[in-house]
This record gives sequence, C-alpha cells and structure tokens, in this order.
Amino acid sequence: MADSIRVLGIDASLRSTGLGVVEAKGTSLTQGSVVNVRSPQSRPRTECLKALHEAVAELIRDVQPVAIAIESAFYAKNAKTSALLGEARGAAISACAICGIPVYEYEPRRVKKAIVGNGAADKTQVRKMVMTLLNITEEPQEDVGDALALAICHLHNRSGHAELMPGAI
Amino acid sequence: MADSIRVLGIDASLRSTGLGVVEAKGTSLTQGSVVNVRSPQSRPRTECLKALHEAVAELIRDVQPVAIAIESAFYAKNAKTSALLGEARGAAISACAICGIPVYEYEPRRVKKAIVGNGAADKTQVRKMVMTLLNITEEPQEDVGDALALAICHLHNRSGHAELMPGAI
Repeated sequence: MADSIRVLGIDASLRSTGLGVVEAKGTSLTQGSVVNVRSPQSRPRTECLKALHEAVAELIRDVQPVAIAIESAFYAKNAKTSALLGEARGAAISACAICGIPVYEYEPRRVKKAIVGNGAADKTQVRKMVMTLLNITEEPQEDVGDALALAICHLHNRSGHAELMPGAI
Repeated sequence: MADSIRVLGIDASLRSTGLGVVEAKGTSLTQGSVVNVRSPQSRPRTECLKALHEAVAELIRDVQPVAIAIESAFYAKNAKTSALLGEARGAAISACAICGIPVYEYEPRRVKKAIVGNGAADKTQVRKMVMTLLNITEEPQEDVGDALALAICHLHNRSGHAELMPGAI
C-alpha cells in the first residue's frame, strides 16, 4: 500500500487566512488539519503578519507536508490590495521557506479547472466538489475551503501531468 | 548625557534590501550597522524571502533598536510590482513583529521632507544630506542609503513633532 503524503494549501490574506491539509494515499484523498487564522480589524498589521507567519510554521512542524500550494499573486485589482495581499503572502512564504518546504503557485483558473474541470467555475461549485472529493459533509470555512482546493490542485497536478507542473517558486 | 537609542530603517525589496541603523545620542546622529541583503535573479523567490526575514531578525537581535522605519506601501505603479514588494515587506515586517519591535511607515515624500526639507527632492540630494547628517564620507549602497534616510526620518519625527507622528502599524 502506498505511503500517504500531505500537502498544505494556503489561501493568504491579512485578516483571514485559510490553511488546509490534504492527505493522499494512492488515489484516496482525506482532509487533514485545517486552521483559519483570523485577525480582527482592530489588530495592528504587524500582529496579523506575526500571527500568520507563526501559524504557518506551527502547522508545518505539526503535519510535515511534502509541498505547499498557494494562489499565485498579481490578480488583485489595484496596487493597494496587491500590496496588502503581498505582505500576507510574504509572511506565509517566508515561514514555508524557513521550514524548507517547497512552495508551488497556482492561478485561480487552474485551481478551478483541477477541481471542477472548468476554469470559469464559481466558488460554490468548487466548494461542493472539494467536499465531495474529501468526503466531508460539513462545509469548510470559506478561506479554508479555498486552501483545501489549492492542496487538491497540487496533488492532481503531481499525479497527473508532471510535465505541466510549475516549478517551485 | 542622554543615553543613545538605535532606529533600524528598512528599504525592502525582493532582490536588494537595505538595512541601516542610526544611533542617536541627544541631537547627534551616527551610522550603526548596515546590511545589503542581495539575492541574484537565479535565486528562488522563497529563498529571497527567507534570507530577508532572517537577516532582519538577526540584525534586530544584534542591535536592539527601539523602533523600525519602513517605506509605506501602495506606491508601486502596477499590481505585480506591488505584490512582489508586498511579499518582501511581509517577510521583513513579520520578523520585526516576532522580535516585538514597533514598526512605523513613512511615505517617500515625508522622508525627503524630513531629510532635505523638500518633499520633491531627488535621490541624490537625499543621499548627500544623509552622509552630511551622519558625518560619513563613503557613499552608502543605494538601498542602504534609503534605509538610513528612513531611520533618520523617524528620529526627526520622534524628537520634533510627536503629535504629527504616525502610530506604529
């Protein structure tokens, strides 16, 4: 029987980051640890970034994933949003790098295609398919659901078309 | 005689970050440790962010600054540049926050005004004035010079018009 591997998906933002682990054993996928790192609006930005960096490092130490999947940047509509999302990503990615785990980026369209088979699928379709693929009945928190989708996308790419897989960033 | 305090300025970017410490004793300013964290284009982005986070944490442990000054975000011309600068800032700011040092943001215009007295001053004028204020004859590396300017700006604001000083982020 194949050994299981774990992939951590990260849907990073300043106030609500989803962390979701998917465990793969052969073709079977199961949900592992999930965390929603939330910071209220009143929390200083520095503290949000600290909490995010530390939560990522702690989960990596706990679950020892073989890889991390994160949404690719550059899709925010304006420079300010891009900068804030970038800060969250930088806090998270630096934690991954310090832990020595390779990080892979996926565009939103690619994640939707991997999960639903359609790059223009809406969020609800993606969420429902994630629940089906992981055989869970309780709907995950929104950002956690997106993180699980990223992890599944990486596992699909890994097992299916390695030649199409992007390199680690 | 007044005790001296140290402020760390950070001019963060993915490939070349300037870190510059300015020590203040009464009205006298001197240059402390400076570091230019450089990553060649061939270096994976994850490794750049790791190097940046670790260099900031190491310098903070070494010099024990009372505050950190960083350029405010949101000034990049496009979303992609903003996102990459944001990642660098997030790696750096999370290190500051983990070390428990307050971080202050300054707009480029405000730094120029604090150093040269003119918010529209060019970079050469700012660099020369930084050298004069710190009484140094060797021109600092460009990003290190910008970092020293940020640290001096924070010290000026601190000593001059506390009511105008922005809160820590």
